Amino acid sequence: MEVSMELHRENREKLCRRMREKLESMGQDGNGEVLLQGGEEHNRYDTDHTPLFRQESYFAYLFGVKEPGFFGSVDVSTGVSTLFCPRLDPEYAVWLGEIQPPKYFKELYGVDEVYYVDEMADVFGVKERSSSDWKLYVLYGKNTDSGSFSKPAEFQGIEKWSVDKDVLHSVLSECRVHKSDLEIELMRYVCKVSSAAHIQVMQECKPGMTEYQLEAIFLHHVYRYGGCRHCSYTCICATGANSSVLHYGHASAPNDRLLQDGDMALLDMGAEYHFYGSDITCSFPVNGTFTNNQRIVYGAVLKAWKAVIAAIRPGVSWVDLHKLAETRILETLKENGVLQGDVEAMMESRLGAIFMPHGLGHFLGLDTHDTGGYPLGTERISAPGLKSLRTVRTLEQGMVITVEPGCYFIEALLVPALEDPVKSNFFVKPALEPFRHSGGVRLEDDILVTANGCENLTICPREIEDVEAVMKGGSWPK
Amino acid sequence: MEVSMELHRENREKLCRRMREKLESMGQDGNGEVLLQGGEEHNRYDTDHTPLFRQESYFAYLFGVKEPGFFGSVDVSTGVSTLFCPRLDPEYAVWLGEIQPPKYFKELYGVDEVYYVDEMADVFGVKERSSSDWKLYVLYGKNTDSGSFSKPAEFQGIEKWSVDKDVLHSVLSECRVHKSDLEIELMRYVCKVSSAAHIQVMQECKPGMTEYQLEAIFLHHVYRYGGCRHCSYTCICATGANSSVLHYGHASAPNDRLLQDGDMALLDMGAEYHFYGSDITCSFPVNGTFTNNQRIVYGAVLKAWKAVIAAIRPGVSWVDLHKLAETRILETLKENGVLQGDVEAMMESRLGAIFMPHGLGHFLGLDTHDTGGYPLGTERISAPGLKSLRTVRTLEQGMVITVEPGCYFIEALLVPALEDPVKSNFFVKPALEPFRHSGGVRLEDDILVTANGCENLTICPREIEDVEAVMKGGSWPK
Repeated sequence: MEVSMELHRENREKLCRRMREKLESMGQDGNGEVLLQGGEEHNRYDTDHTPLFRQESYFAYLFGVKEPGFFGSVDVSTGVSTLFCPRLDPEYAVWLGEIQPPKYFKELYGVDEVYYVDEMADVFGVKERSSSDWKLYVLYGKNTDSGSFSKPAEFQGIEKWSVDKDVLHSVLSECRVHKSDLEIELMRYVCKVSSAAHIQVMQECKPGMTEYQLEAIFLHHVYRYGGCRHCSYTCICATGANSSVLHYGHASAPNDRLLQDGDMALLDMGAEYHFYGSDITCSFPVNGTFTNNQRIVYGAVLKAWKAVIAAIRPGVSWVDLHKLAETRILETLKENGVLQGDVEAMMESRLGAIFMPHGLGHFLGLDTHDTGGYPLGTERISAPGLKSLRTVRTLEQGMVITVEPGCYFIEALLVPALEDPVKSNFFVKPALEPFRHSGGVRLEDDILVTANGCENLTICPREIEDVEAVMKGGSWPK
Repeated sequence: MEVSMELHRENREKLCRRMREKLESMGQDGNGEVLLQGGEEHNRYDTDHTPLFRQESYFAYLFGVKEPGFFGSVDVSTGVSTLFCPRLDPEYAVWLGEIQPPKYFKELYGVDEVYYVDEMADVFGVKERSSSDWKLYVLYGKNTDSGSFSKPAEFQGIEKWSVDKDVLHSVLSECRVHKSDLEIELMRYVCKVSSAAHIQVMQECKPGMTEYQLEAIFLHHVYRYGGCRHCSYTCICATGANSSVLHYGHASAPNDRLLQDGDMALLDMGAEYHFYGSDITCSFPVNGTFTNNQRIVYGAVLKAWKAVIAAIRPGVSWVDLHKLAETRILETLKENGVLQGDVEAMMESRLGAIFMPHGLGHFLGLDTHDTGGYPLGTERISAPGLKSLRTVRTLEQGMVITVEPGCYFIEALLVPALEDPVKSNFFVKPALEPFRHSGGVRLEDDILVTANGCENLTICPREIEDVEAVMKGGSWPK
């Protein structure tokens, strides 16, 4: 897929418009330049091993630059955009490729001006003289998923100017929340590629394979047929009991189990294309046929998934949708005799968080957990389950958010719940027993909130009969 | 492949033996503990995106630990080994997997003792009291490929002890130079897997594909069939003129060209298994049949490759082998009318470095450019080409080193050479012309130096007729 740099030009225009509004509301005139520092390449420890560079997401949002070592600025009043490229050592041409002049990057990235990084102070010196109260707006603020702070741009000589670290972060983070038509087109593409890869994995999966072989099939498909060199996150290829480990697949739990007949698989994998990601989870029996117990758990999650997607539209609260998903899961477990008692009382006791300790979903875009989940003035809810929500916002048109209800049997949560004076009463213990150590189910789709409802960007089979048919080799979409 | 932790126990024993010898030679009694800090997981910029963790190589060498956040120590006198594992937050069990107790890691990694990281000061306190002049030997020294320094272990309370930063680095770096039988067995495996993947790529390659599709095939093969989740380095999939870019494939030159009929491909790709790497380059015409000019360049490199491999044995100087490769390449270019004049005079003028600006090869092991290339007392040669050598040592049994002669037509080097009063005389300019912008050829194998010669761990076709036969679907090895 060809991506137009118009996408990033639009992103810059949106930022400038919002910056001017914001500054005006603060009684400031908005003379100045937004300045972002792109990512740098880093070696592994003390060696010369260089992991593949991936651009910093805010920088990618505004400029779409894939190379390391750049800076970029945008004049808040005029929208004039400037890139600063590193001046490369002549040796670069021998080892790393042709050294491109600034005008190459001007054309490639469709910006108004390109200079070298070592010319920044001079360039800003000229800009400053053309207006009063001239400022550099740099990025500094907290990422509410990691708790880390973005690193404001820094260059030699920056101390000569008035630098504002307070305004940009919240404005730029909020820009990323609502996707433009060009961003949506790109995300539709990467979701389609990832969906097709999931389907190939389902069709090749069988007992006797290893989890990492499923990962290998996915990675191959999205790269070879979709051009996706990066994934949005490390693939989670969990089977059997591993599927109750929410973030399985990391170096300490590296997708290395042998698939057993009778296992469920929970595969959470999403590719990235031109910085924009996808995030999709499929769950299915590795032998292609659901057992009765697998139907119960899968059915509970499917009901939650359907209820949430049917309810999504602008104006709906994400917290309410999370509770809706929990309710459907608890109801289904009750219908099947695993739980007993009043579902409202279960909700009151936060029993839902035992089965679904994570939030219902998160914004998706340049980062898997995209920005804007907790704008200034919003706060996390402290209750179990709800505290894991990555946003508590009301849905708005143009948001892309994952819907990922799950139902897991996690010993670290079940054991205390079974000992809890309130929660323990809801369990039908003999009925629960066969589910323990069986893992879990998650269904995750990437959803665009539209004017009247939503568009599901993911194209994977979800109904039990469709999953079984695809695993027998049936094509999808039908 | 199952890897025995005996491999790392042997590595620790070797280190202790050499440390005692070294300390004895310095008149010290060797009471103390080698202390290494393992790698930490790092997020991408300010986000919660966690790239897949890969252990620091010195730590991996001694302990084989795949998890982040560990420390490890070895008593220099007794060889008793201790791992310190991080004390994980109970939340870990919900998100990342079962929390394992120290005794789990003791069994998994075959060390003598395991404590928590927060117990380090106490553990060392007890050890110190049992002997006089007790020291902690930490790792600090320069990596001669990157120019960076290793980060010595640090923990709260370390200032209470006598810490030596001077002894360990050179001893441990030198330990890694000569591979044990178990290390060799592992490297044989990963070379075999990577070789098979290269062959699959050759068999699927055809004009109209993209470079990254070749990368995707390789990555898929080594992971799916070999269990190799990491590669030793970013794949270099260069075709056409790109094959003269020595380290092509990085984010700024991301393997995204369309293969044209008539191109040469230069594919430098190597998988890693249990921390140990491979590093293999195959060069071939993308349509499966060499043209006459491709035969000339390939033939030059093949002659150099054969001459070097035939000459490898303990006692041979790596610098001499580099010059041997250069000589064979220059001779062949002269035989084919591209160069003229006296080959010795060409060597004198360092003309070889125009066609092969990189060194002949490098030690290979836990890092692609493995340690020990320039032990204390050795120095880089300043002449063109030779200055790029990653070692100037004399070969010794047990070394694993890449042999990677190449012949490239690099404009950034050819243009000045054609204007140079001495070098320009060697070129037959009209004969050179058709080769310009055609790229280059590299053949790279991983070679174990044995008692009387060498063993080639790589299993790829090298003769022109074998390459053509494999590309037509012929099996390899024959």
